[in-house]
Amino acid sequence: MSRRRKPSLHAVILAGGAGERFWPASRRHHPKPLLEVVGGRSLLDATVSRARRFASPDAVWLVCGHEHATAMRKASGLPANRVLVEPERRNTAMAIAWAALRIRAEDPEAILAVLPADHHIPDARAFAAAIRVGARAATRGDVLVTLGVQPSRPETGYGYIQLGAAAGPEHPGLRRVRRFVEKPNAQTARRYLRKGSYRWNAGVFVWQADFLLRELQRTAPALHRALSPLRAKPRGRNRDAVIAAYGRAPSLPIDIALLERSQSVWCLPVDFRWSDVGTWESLAEELARGDKRAREKNYLIAGELLASDARGNLVWGSDRPVALVGVEGLAVIDAGDVILVTSLERSPDVRKLVADLNTKGRRGLT
Amino acid sequence: MSRRRKPSLHAVILAGGAGERFWPASRRHHPKPLLEVVGGRSLLDATVSRARRFASPDAVWLVCGHEHATAMRKASGLPANRVLVEPERRNTAMAIAWAALRIRAEDPEAILAVLPADHHIPDARAFAAAIRVGARAATRGDVLVTLGVQPSRPETGYGYIQLGAAAGPEHPGLRRVRRFVEKPNAQTARRYLRKGSYRWNAGVFVWQADFLLRELQRTAPALHRALSPLRAKPRGRNRDAVIAAYGRAPSLPIDIALLERSQSVWCLPVDFRWSDVGTWESLAEELARGDKRAREKNYLIAGELLASDARGNLVWGSDRPVALVGVEGLAVIDAGDVILVTSLERSPDVRKLVADLNTKGRRGLT
Repeated sequence: MSRRRKPSLHAVILAGGAGERFWPASRRHHPKPLLEVVGGRSLLDATVSRARRFASPDAVWLVCGHEHATAMRKASGLPANRVLVEPERRNTAMAIAWAALRIRAEDPEAILAVLPADHHIPDARAFAAAIRVGARAATRGDVLVTLGVQPSRPETGYGYIQLGAAAGPEHPGLRRVRRFVEKPNAQTARRYLRKGSYRWNAGVFVWQADFLLRELQRTAPALHRALSPLRAKPRGRNRDAVIAAYGRAPSLPIDIALLERSQSVWCLPVDFRWSDVGTWESLAEELARGDKRAREKNYLIAGELLASDARGNLVWGSDRPVALVGVEGLAVIDAGDVILVTSLERSPDVRKLVADLNTKGRRGLT
Repeated sequence: MSRRRKPSLHAVILAGGAGERFWPASRRHHPKPLLEVVGGRSLLDATVSRARRFASPDAVWLVCGHEHATAMRKASGLPANRVLVEPERRNTAMAIAWAALRIRAEDPEAILAVLPADHHIPDARAFAAAIRVGARAATRGDVLVTLGVQPSRPETGYGYIQLGAAAGPEHPGLRRVRRFVEKPNAQTARRYLRKGSYRWNAGVFVWQADFLLRELQRTAPALHRALSPLRAKPRGRNRDAVIAAYGRAPSLPIDIALLERSQSVWCLPVDFRWSDVGTWESLAEELARGDKRAREKNYLIAGELLASDARGNLVWGSDRPVALVGVEGLAVIDAGDVILVTSLERSPDVRKLVADLNTKGRRGLT
């Protein structure tokens, strides 16, 4: 195929995560991207809107699990041939690799912007601008660009990126990456926050599909080999090939399969507001951001709240009111068939409870 | 009628309270005495059992509001002619006075033991023994005996009794009362606890019906006057008289109408376990009593609890599980149509929320 001057920019939205720490609002059969957490629309719907700012309608893709395919198609509004349905969960590296292979088959020099389906980024314009800056660099065909979010707290739940030297005068703003650091402890996280040269790895990446696949061959050969049934038949009526590929693919996050092992990673530091709404605490922080009186208030996602001397609580009710008396910093989630009460601070541990329920055969609740 | 050597001892169970601090388990149409809080039976049922230890079956009486009459009759198992149904709420003085008038009409020298319907006293035998000691003194016909519970904490929600001199060699254990003190502040309550000469007023009284009525004439003349329609027709087919009497009766607690104003009050200090189960906090304390590992546990009244690193919480669920993650010292009450989350410490303030709901026309919830 002929080289185009400006290769097209595709959005690959990843919706394979379980969002277990968001239980009991997110459930196995109703995962986090489908939740209407902020602004009266699902996180997935908002993500698709963000993607449409920089990708043409035909260049927005979604990767999701088979058990959610119908709901995800509906919530995303994407055409069926732009939704890649995974036969089993194999973590982000496989989801991204399949999408890259599929898109490259249509568009050999395609640039992919990889976006999690369940993050909250209120400034869609700034986000699209950053993706375009990344895409310009990715067009070189020899770098992997990751967005680096400015940390606002000593978070121990995220991976960090240590920034290196400037990428060069041709790519203003972009930095080389010194190293990726997996979730640090609290002391280390505080140091990173002070130092200023560390960024959160937000799981947003921009790269050329072809370069990504070549790089994966080096950094994750087993994964790359698993793709072979798909290489022969990358698109259309290829369900058997998809199933065969997933059957042998290792389950690896892209951070480990690629980013930590590649020497070609650049980082684009960004300072727009970003939240992974990963826990009840992070949702509460997001809702309170920029609100000086936030600590005096309660945040109601849905339902009715009856409060007496209660503040800083997050409430997601159903068809019965939730009454709070003399409590602070709690999340109270009434999912209809189960009620969760957790301290916001300890809400990441909700995941443990969910794991425990699964172990005990209480999957009806998870 | 002829004088009997040993006047009979009647139990008068008062079930007129709303138990608002026990919301949302106790409701206007399902008040606290009907709740199965401890031991799988209603507080009222347990109170009737206690009363039967010292009063003959025909001498157990219940006073309750008309809106609860059917449920109270059923839960108490008492015959209809032993249930006095108040046409309106007029607080404890009127309820006791009516019962005294009614019982005196059958039994001129009757001794009454007045018992709240919604307290928890696990040692029914010790309780009955104390009532009998009080009854022996009350038979003199010139004293009002109140039980004085040994304080176990600097409680600010109860009235206190300051003990005076011994009542005399004929009445071992009984003390004169120096004074009644209404709910003290925290500092004063701590002083009372240290001093040892203060007792909680548990709302349990023993007196002769006739002496009580004579004393009320002096200490609460308006109340006494209001009884006049009933004096003419104290029993049987007297609904008009009851309505007339209640129509003019002032609403006064017995403490104010009688105890604080009478010079004839004695106190019988008792040391059996007693709880008014007045708030979620006091219920939690009662459930934890004598349990050294109580702080490590959660207390489940009903329903299913899923706990992860949660302790010292009280949970009353309904048909869906309650999950607690990383929280301590909370009460979580799922009443089906409304969910309450309060800190145990602040649970007395539930009453404020209930008052607020009533003011706002949300009586469906109260």
